[in-house]
Amino acid sequence: MAEHVDPIFDIAQLAHVEMLSTDPAGTERFFTEFLGMSVTAREGNSVYLRAYEEAYHSSLKITEAAQPGLGHVAWRTQSPAALERRVAAIETAGLGQRWIDGDLGHGEAYQFTTPDGHAMELFWDVERWEATPELRTPLLNRPQRRPTQGVPVRRIDHVNLMASDAAENRRFFEEHLGFRTRERIVAGEGAEQIELGNWMSVSPLVHEIAIMRDPSGTRGRFHHVCYWYGVPQHCNDAAEVLREAGYEIEAGPGKHGVSQATFLYVWEPGGNRVELFGDVGYLIQEPDWQPVTWHAETDMEWLTSIYGPIPMSFFEIGMPPVGAVEPVGA
Amino acid sequence: MAEHVDPIFDIAQLAHVEMLSTDPAGTERFFTEFLGMSVTAREGNSVYLRAYEEAYHSSLKITEAAQPGLGHVAWRTQSPAALERRVAAIETAGLGQRWIDGDLGHGEAYQFTTPDGHAMELFWDVERWEATPELRTPLLNRPQRRPTQGVPVRRIDHVNLMASDAAENRRFFEEHLGFRTRERIVAGEGAEQIELGNWMSVSPLVHEIAIMRDPSGTRGRFHHVCYWYGVPQHCNDAAEVLREAGYEIEAGPGKHGVSQATFLYVWEPGGNRVELFGDVGYLIQEPDWQPVTWHAETDMEWLTSIYGPIPMSFFEIGMPPVGAVEPVGA
Amino acid sequence: MAEHVDPIFDIAQLAHVEMLSTDPAGTERFFTEFLGMSVTAREGNSVYLRAYEEAYHSSLKITEAAQPGLGHVAWRTQSPAALERRVAAIETAGLGQRWIDGDLGHGEAYQFTTPDGHAMELFWDVERWEATPELRTPLLNRPQRRPTQGVPVRRIDHVNLMASDAAENRRFFEEHLGFRTRERIVAGEGAEQIELGNWMSVSPLVHEIAIMRDPSGTRGRFHHVCYWYGVPQHCNDAAEVLREAGYEIEAGPGKHGVSQATFLYVWEPGGNRVELFGDVGYLIQEPDWQPVTWHAETDMEWLTSIYGPIPMSFFEIGMPPVGAVEPVGA
Amino acid sequence: MAEHVDPIFDIAQLAHVEMLSTDPAGTERFFTEFLGMSVTAREGNSVYLRAYEEAYHSSLKITEAAQPGLGHVAWRTQSPAALERRVAAIETAGLGQRWIDGDLGHGEAYQFTTPDGHAMELFWDVERWEATPELRTPLLNRPQRRPTQGVPVRRIDHVNLMASDAAENRRFFEEHLGFRTRERIVAGEGAEQIELGNWMSVSPLVHEIAIMRDPSGTRGRFHHVCYWYGVPQHCNDAAEVLREAGYEIEAGPGKHGVSQATFLYVWEPGGNRVELFGDVGYLIQEPDWQPVTWHAETDMEWLTSIYGPIPMSFFEIGMPPVGAVEPVGA
Repeated sequence: MAEHVDPIFDIAQLAHVEMLSTDPAGTERFFTEFLGMSVTAREGNSVYLRAYEEAYHSSLKITEAAQPGLGHVAWRTQSPAALERRVAAIETAGLGQRWIDGDLGHGEAYQFTTPDGHAMELFWDVERWEATPELRTPLLNRPQRRPTQGVPVRRIDHVNLMASDAAENRRFFEEHLGFRTRERIVAGEGAEQIELGNWMSVSPLVHEIAIMRDPSGTRGRFHHVCYWYGVPQHCNDAAEVLREAGYEIEAGPGKHGVSQATFLYVWEPGGNRVELFGDVGYLIQEPDWQPVTWHAETDMEWLTSIYGPIPMSFFEIGMPPVGAVEPVGA
Repeated sequence: MAEHVDPIFDIAQLAHVEMLSTDPAGTERFFTEFLGMSVTAREGNSVYLRAYEEAYHSSLKITEAAQPGLGHVAWRTQSPAALERRVAAIETAGLGQRWIDGDLGHGEAYQFTTPDGHAMELFWDVERWEATPELRTPLLNRPQRRPTQGVPVRRIDHVNLMASDAAENRRFFEEHLGFRTRERIVAGEGAEQIELGNWMSVSPLVHEIAIMRDPSGTRGRFHHVCYWYGVPQHCNDAAEVLREAGYEIEAGPGKHGVSQATFLYVWEPGGNRVELFGDVGYLIQEPDWQPVTWHAETDMEWLTSIYGPIPMSFFEIGMPPVGAVEPVGA
Repeated sequence: MAEHVDPIFDIAQLAHVEMLSTDPAGTERFFTEFLGMSVTAREGNSVYLRAYEEAYHSSLKITEAAQPGLGHVAWRTQSPAALERRVAAIETAGLGQRWIDGDLGHGEAYQFTTPDGHAMELFWDVERWEATPELRTPLLNRPQRRPTQGVPVRRIDHVNLMASDAAENRRFFEEHLGFRTRERIVAGEGAEQIELGNWMSVSPLVHEIAIMRDPSGTRGRFHHVCYWYGVPQHCNDAAEVLREAGYEIEAGPGKHGVSQATFLYVWEPGGNRVELFGDVGYLIQEPDWQPVTWHAETDMEWLTSIYGPIPMSFFEIGMPPVGAVEPVGA
Repeated sequence: MAEHVDPIFDIAQLAHVEMLSTDPAGTERFFTEFLGMSVTAREGNSVYLRAYEEAYHSSLKITEAAQPGLGHVAWRTQSPAALERRVAAIETAGLGQRWIDGDLGHGEAYQFTTPDGHAMELFWDVERWEATPELRTPLLNRPQRRPTQGVPVRRIDHVNLMASDAAENRRFFEEHLGFRTRERIVAGEGAEQIELGNWMSVSPLVHEIAIMRDPSGTRGRFHHVCYWYGVPQHCNDAAEVLREAGYEIEAGPGKHGVSQATFLYVWEPGGNRVELFGDVGYLIQEPDWQPVTWHAETDMEWLTSIYGPIPMSFFEIGMPPVGAVEPVGA
C-alpha cells in the first residue's frame, strides 16, 4: 500500500438541496403532513423546509418548475479558510462560476457545477433556526420538540445524482472537494471496466453523495434526496401512511447492501424520488478504508436490497425525464 | 463568535479497549455466547475478541486481574504523520511514556496517560482480520457473516472513564488529541461551577470517549465500554437473554438524553459495566457545534434516560472499587 | 387433573371504558394530539373517542368528575343468547342492577357491579363507526386510514382494576362471566396465602382484565386502561413525544414479565394512569392452560418489568385517591 | 343481518404440522441453526422439533420424502367432549378415516382429510415438554429460556394449503370444524365469482389456516407453514442471516394486507416455503365479524404486501410440484 496521506477535511456537511417540483403544493404537503417537516420561509416560487433535528434555517428548498429535477446542492465547509481552499481548487478545475450574496438561510456562497453540470454551492455563513418557546424541548441537544405530525424525519442524509460519466464526476469530488469513495459498482473488467455508481462521503457515513451512471447518457440529472429517521420501524410506518394516502412506493422498505441502511423509496407528487433511511447503516471509521467494489455481473442481487430484487425503474428513471429540458446547471 | 478555526483531525477512531477482569472465563462467555463476539487470540493472561463488523484483529482485550477496571485504551490515527504530530503534542504536555513494539493485532504504539492516569496508546500499524471462507459473506462491506450466536454486537462504540477532575482531562483530549466536546454536564454557576461529565468525539458521533467526575475523588477509574447494534430492538433482545441467563442489568433498555442513543447497561461477570447501544443517537455534522450544557440542578431527569430515573449506582460505581488497588496507569 | 370441561365463551370482548377525569379537556388532548384517537361524540359532561382500528362507535368515554377513576367497563357478548345467559348468571350471584336503554354507541345494556363495586355493563347491540370517504383506506380490514396525528394507538387492550379482595373478584369473573385466569401473583403460603393480582381473559390474550389487590383496602378503585400498538418501537415513540410535551411517565418503556408485553405507563392530565402496549406479548392457545403463579417473595423483579424495578407508585396508587370519594359503583 | 348464533368453539389450536422434506438434514439445520428451534425426538425417517415458547412436545415433524409437501396437520380440541363432537361431524361429512393410537408427543388421534385430500388429525391428549434445569427461566410463563442460537421463533402460527376448490374446502372448515372465515379473495362477480383464497381462524388471530386456490388444479398441495416472532425487526434479522447463509428469500420482509402481519417467505432446503411472522397483525375480537372480501381485479397490490408487488411464484408454486406425486392424503 502506498504511503497513507491525510485526507482533505474541508467539506463539513450536506447543507441543503433545492428540488424542482411540478406540483409545489403537493410536494410541500408530502413533506409536511406525512414526514413532519416544517415550512420556514416562502419566497418567489420557492418554499423552504427543515426537519426537526436540523439546526439551520432549511435543508430543502422546493422550487416550482416545468419538470422535476435538481435545483442545486449546497455544502457547508469546515471553516471560512476551508471555503477559500475549496473555491481555489474548484477554480483550478475550471468548474467555478461565481460568488452570490446568499439566499434565505445562508450568506455568501460560491456556485460551481459538477463535470456533468449539476449546480452546486459552497458556503460558510449560515442562519440558525430558533424554536419558538412552545416548540422548545428539555432535550437540549435537539433544536425543537419531535413533531406529532406524520412520521417525522430527523435530518437530511444524502443526495444521489445521475451522471453521464460516473468516473469523471467521482474524481472531481475526490480531488477537489475531499470526498472519499466508500463503495462502488462497476461493470466489466480491465480497460473495459466502467463505473456504474460511486458512494462518497466526508464523514463516517457511507455517503453524503452518490453518483450513478445515467443509462440514458443524459447529463446532470437528479436521482433522489434522502432524509433520515434513525430507526428501521419508521420506514415501515412511513410506507404505511404514505401508501394509504395514495403515494406510490418504488421500492422498500428494505435493507441496502451498499451502506447497509434500511431504506424506502417513494415518489413525491412533484415528480421526484425521495428516499427515507431507517437506521444509519454501518459507519466507516477506518482512516485507510479501501472502496468496496461490487460487480454488476455477480453482485446485483445484493446491492440495492439484500432481501430481493427492486424495480428496474430505480436504475433508469432520473429527473427530469430524458429529453424534457436541459438541466438547470447546464 | 470567535473566528472558527479548523479542528485537528489526527485521531481516527477508538481502536480497542483492554478491560481487566476478575473472571476472564466468565467475561469471555458473556461476550461470545450472548453478544456474538469471537475470540481471535489468546496470550498470557489475556484473550482478544472482535465484533463481526470490525475490520481489525480485535477491539477488546480481556486481561485477568485482581480487580476489574481499565487496562488501556488504544486509538488509531488518521495517518503515520498524524501519529507523529500527536506524539509530539503529548510529549509537550508531559504525559508521554514510551514507544512499544506493539501487541497482538497492531504494530508499534506510543503509550501515554491521561492527566488522571488512565493508560492510553496511539498507533497506526494495524493487523486486519481475514474471514475464513465459510465465514465470508456476499455483503462485501462486511468483514464476515453476521453470527447466529447470541444477539451479536457490530462494533465497539465508545469508552467511558471516571476522573478526579473532569475538566482537566477534557482539556487534555481537546488540546492535545483534537477531540471536540459535544455535550457536558455541570453543577453550580460561575466560578463555583464544576464539570461532572464531558462527551467528546473526533467524528460526527457524540462521543468516542466520555470523562465523568468520580464522586469518590479516585483517580484513573473505568466506567464502561460500549458496543453497538444499530437497531433499538437489539438492546431489548440482549436484555432478555442476559436476564434469563442471570446477568444483572443496571439500567435500560432506555433512551439517553445525552447522545439520544438507545442504551442498556449490564454487569459482566468480571466486575465491569458494559453498555450496549441500539441506534446511533444523533450525529453532529455542524463544524461549529457548540457543546450542549446540561445542568445537574435542573436537567438530571433528562440526561441518562429520557423516560425516567436510573439507579444511583450508575453515577457512583467505577472500576476498580474505591481503595482496592492503584489504577493500572498510575 | 380433573376432567377438562369446555369453558364459557359468552363474553366476546372489552368494548369500552368510561374514565373519570378532573381535566376532561386535558384528557381529550392527551388521547387525540398524542395518541391519535378521534372524538366521535360529545354529550353532557362526556366525550367519546375511538382508536383507528376499532370498528365500533367508541372505546373510551371521558366524563368530567371531581376525582379521577373508573366510570364503568362495558363488555360485548358473543351473541344475544350469550347476553341472556350472563345476565341470568349475574342475577344469581346477586350483583345485577338494571337494564338501561343504552348510551351513545350501543343499545340496551345490563348494569351490574363486581363484588368490589366497580360498575360494569354487558351489551350486544352496538353501533358501528363508518369512515367518511376521505378517511377510507384500500386496506379493507381497517376501518379507516392510520392517522398522521401523534403516535396513533390501534385499539383498546385491557382494563386493570384494584380491589379490596382480589380473590373474591377473580372468582366472580371466572364463575359468572367465563373468564379464565392466566397469571396470578400471590403472597404467603398455604392457608395464609393471599392473592395480590389476577390476569384474566376470554381470548388468547393474557388479559382483558386484571384485578390487583388494593393495599389501602379501598373498594372499587381503578388502576389503568391500556391501548395497543402492536409494535414495541411505538412505545418508545410515544414516550418521547409525551415526555417532551411535559407528561409524566410512571414506568417503561419496558417488557412485562406477566404477559411478556412491551409497556409504557404514563399519567394523563385528568389524574389517571394510562398504559400503552407495544407488542401483543405471548398468546395462550392451550385449552387446558394452568394459571402461572408468581410469588411476591421471590419473583417481584420479574413481574412488572423483566429489565429492572419499577416505582412503588405502580403498586400503591389507584384512582380515586384513598378517602377522596366513594367509588362510582358503590 | 340474520340472528347471530354462537359459533362452535371446539378446535382450540393448530398443534403441529408434518412437513415432507427431500433434504431432512438440511431442513433440520434450517430450523435449528437459524431459527433457534430444538429437536425433541427422532424416529424412523422423522425428526420432531419445537420452538421455545411452545408447551408441547413438538410443533413440527420433518419426514423424509421424495417430494416436498404436507405430511399432515394436527389440531388440538378444547376438551375431550369437543373432540367427540368434531369426530361425529366429520363422519357425517364423510371425510373421516380412522382413530390411531397416537404419535410421539400426543395420544390417540382421529385422522381425516379435507375435501381436497390434505391429511388432518384431531386429538386431545398431548405430551407436555419439560425444560431441563439449565434451560429453565425465571420468566414463569415461558417453557424455557429464549435460545441464543439463531433468530429464534416463538411458536407455530398457521398453515397455508392449496386446494383445487377453495370454496368447498372453506365450507368444510366452517361447517364441520367451526372455523370462522376472516378474510377472502375472490375473482369475478355474481354467479361467475370464484374464491381464490380464504383465511380462517378459531381465535382472534386472522388465521390458523388459509386455503388458496391452486391455479394448477392439483389437489391437496401444501403452500407453507408459518412460525411467529412477535416483533417486526426479527423478520429483518432472520432475512439477513438466512440470506448470508445462502437461503433464498421468496418475498419480504414486508407487511401483508391480509392479516396486516409483518412477513418473510423463505425456501428451506427440503423444498418447502416457510413463512415467518413478525408482529401479530390485527386481532379480531368482534363476535359478528363479517369476512373482509378483496377482489383480485382491484385489490391485488394490497393483498400480500402493502408496500409493493411480490413474485408470481408465491401464487403458483405449491408442494409437491405439479404432477410429481399424488398427495399423501389422497
